[in-house]
Amino acid sequence: MPDPLRIAIAGLGTVGAGTLRLLSKHDDLLAARAGRPLTVTAISARDKSKDRGVQLDNLTWFDDPVAMAHEAEADVIVELIGGEDGPAKAVCEAALAAGRHIVTANKALMAVHGSELADAAEQAGAVLNFEAAVAGGIPIVKALREGLAGNEITRVYGILNGTCNYILTKMREERRSFEDVLDEAQRLGYAEAEPSMDVDGIDAGQKLALLASLAFGSRIDFSGVYTEGIRRISLLDIDYAEELGYRIKLLGSARRTEYGLEQRVYPCMVDQRFPIAHVEGAYNAVVAIGDFVGDTMFQGLGAGAGPTASAVVADIIDIARNHRAPTLGISAGSLQSLPAAPIGRHWGAYYVRLMVSDRPGVIADVTAVFRDEAVSIESMIQRARSETEAVPVVLNMHECEEAAMQRALTRIATLDSVVEAPTMIRIESLA
Amino acid sequence: MPDPLRIAIAGLGTVGAGTLRLLSKHDDLLAARAGRPLTVTAISARDKSKDRGVQLDNLTWFDDPVAMAHEAEADVIVELIGGEDGPAKAVCEAALAAGRHIVTANKALMAVHGSELADAAEQAGAVLNFEAAVAGGIPIVKALREGLAGNEITRVYGILNGTCNYILTKMREERRSFEDVLDEAQRLGYAEAEPSMDVDGIDAGQKLALLASLAFGSRIDFSGVYTEGIRRISLLDIDYAEELGYRIKLLGSARRTEYGLEQRVYPCMVDQRFPIAHVEGAYNAVVAIGDFVGDTMFQGLGAGAGPTASAVVADIIDIARNHRAPTLGISAGSLQSLPAAPIGRHWGAYYVRLMVSDRPGVIADVTAVFRDEAVSIESMIQRARSETEAVPVVLNMHECEEAAMQRALTRIATLDSVVEAPTMIRIESLA
Repeated sequence: MPDPLRIAIAGLGTVGAGTLRLLSKHDDLLAARAGRPLTVTAISARDKSKDRGVQLDNLTWFDDPVAMAHEAEADVIVELIGGEDGPAKAVCEAALAAGRHIVTANKALMAVHGSELADAAEQAGAVLNFEAAVAGGIPIVKALREGLAGNEITRVYGILNGTCNYILTKMREERRSFEDVLDEAQRLGYAEAEPSMDVDGIDAGQKLALLASLAFGSRIDFSGVYTEGIRRISLLDIDYAEELGYRIKLLGSARRTEYGLEQRVYPCMVDQRFPIAHVEGAYNAVVAIGDFVGDTMFQGLGAGAGPTASAVVADIIDIARNHRAPTLGISAGSLQSLPAAPIGRHWGAYYVRLMVSDRPGVIADVTAVFRDEAVSIESMIQRARSETEAVPVVLNMHECEEAAMQRALTRIATLDSVVEAPTMIRIESLA
Repeated sequence: MPDPLRIAIAGLGTVGAGTLRLLSKHDDLLAARAGRPLTVTAISARDKSKDRGVQLDNLTWFDDPVAMAHEAEADVIVELIGGEDGPAKAVCEAALAAGRHIVTANKALMAVHGSELADAAEQAGAVLNFEAAVAGGIPIVKALREGLAGNEITRVYGILNGTCNYILTKMREERRSFEDVLDEAQRLGYAEAEPSMDVDGIDAGQKLALLASLAFGSRIDFSGVYTEGIRRISLLDIDYAEELGYRIKLLGSARRTEYGLEQRVYPCMVDQRFPIAHVEGAYNAVVAIGDFVGDTMFQGLGAGAGPTASAVVADIIDIARNHRAPTLGISAGSLQSLPAAPIGRHWGAYYVRLMVSDRPGVIADVTAVFRDEAVSIESMIQRARSETEAVPVVLNMHECEEAAMQRALTRIATLDSVVEAPTMIRIESLA
């Protein structure tokens, strides 16, 4: 048996403890698969005394993870600290300076500094793997970098945040409001006390920026991701979506267009005939479309100790097997800088819900605005009638350019008979 | 730029021509991803003069693929001839004897001789890759061998034959019979003139045997696969399935049980709440369940020139990058021989449809038989009434052992009032 691969782990939160547990539980199986033992030699975390339910004896403890990255007897440094700067970044830089390989689960770090780190890894002759940073246990980084490497990827999109998908699923299945489900998710520990990273689409945007780079050979451009979250999604819209044959999902989607690299995260209506519409609860799913392979979809749990540890350990096994794929699919120096396509150039169909005073002339006013902007209506639902309360009018709009739709909605919002800001949800074309 | 990887291709049918087209169309992209050019140097097929729409100049032509495997200036031999023995096998043996790597799309060859070939490749220090042999463009071999390698896999199952899935989808969507859709598929070239490999589940069984070996570290055991095809599926059963919240799919499923390795291909009822129920048309999908990662699903086109070429080229890129994972996930010498679990030990729920003469006492007779075999009925549908024609009675049976179900059905078939052989379709538990 060849020499063991020596592993030092920085960060012992849920994922770090899960990774230790996996490495210990499956040590024989992993050695058989990797062709050599995987041995944890060193560890660093904030509090040595905390009980994490894992054995830390025989491991060299470092209070300072950066010192560990330099000094530990290790071939691989596993960065599970998190955060886009600070110690996580310092650990990676120290590891590369010492010529060690890196495995990280840190999407924030990679979304902001990934291109530079990939470059540094290449210079150092080291591997930088980050499977766990995108869609948890789903081996989608490997799929884009290796399994689909024969293709020009024309589009990549997916459900990239399990918390949002869980909330949307619960809202629909249990007929509850966004706030109500979020409250419960926070009580149960499925959502953070400060939920913005999840529900405002930031976490999904970080993952999308990594997927786009892998798919299109472009430098990671997190700042170019257009982001809308799910706070504004109401049960009413979820019901209308079902009636119209759609399901509302928070999708991240990227493609190259004539206007540049399109990277977008927003809640949208997905045709129920597509399998991704049926990806529910905490599951993530990524669709990659290649010019030879066609549509491929990868689904699994996007977070949690087990799925994330699974991805971290797969990255470690690759290093043990001496697999060296470029971090972002091609040499970091060859990554292109692409301009961000403006959201105003988005082209697609739209669902629009207006709350209106139910009196003569309302529809005429609304349709006149759409006519002026050359945006055409495919169908309209107005069912409820009331002399006292606002009633919903739902419009399915034909495909048009987003800028025209936004101009129309701005004008419609000012109509006297329209009593709430209009709700607009994009109808996503997946074909 | 390092030396090119030199490739010799044996077999220029649809897949061979597609692979040549891909390698030519994306030559710069592939070189960037592989870190070196991929250069086809030699080719062998039956008819040199046939126009395949691809450029063959500058390639060394061999009439004899075995001679090519020995003599061509090549690092990799790509075997796209097909067939479980004959020239395909001889080409692989010759390539390994000459110390060349192999990429094959040949599921029949791998299902029957894969363990021995993996062993021979290991002895020769060569790579044997076969991504294209399982589920076309879906990188599921890589997922099991690498992306999910941190897990003990507890089950793998999927829709492994696109022709069957296409037929079942068309039957349901267009309300047509099996024979009718098969006829059309044959006219359009989607199904073979001799359709048995597809519709009798043999092709799916070959793929399942490969998936099971990768998942469980066992020697490939194609002869241990229990197989039923879709010829007996009627529109009537498809309609009842929909009504009961199921969809009928031809699934291949493998897991380790106390009775041995369970490898089964049969049409079954799949709960519509699972995304795999919505995988339609020519798509394949594979679900792998790991103890850390949980459920993962991989979906894509399972056949055709483009998807298959995508998988073949991914395998070639891995070789160009010098990635050397063991063919079947672990060293071939370590693969276990597992006994085949008998189908009589299957445990699950069942859908049973009887065609009966509508007269008093029929239901009493049927239910008495089930009672005698200790098999209990969950629900029953008898809707149609007729004094002259047989009417369907549909029974949803609680979970029981298959042997008891089969004994009951054998007895029920002999009842006077039961006028056709009973239809039994397993209700597959996916949770």
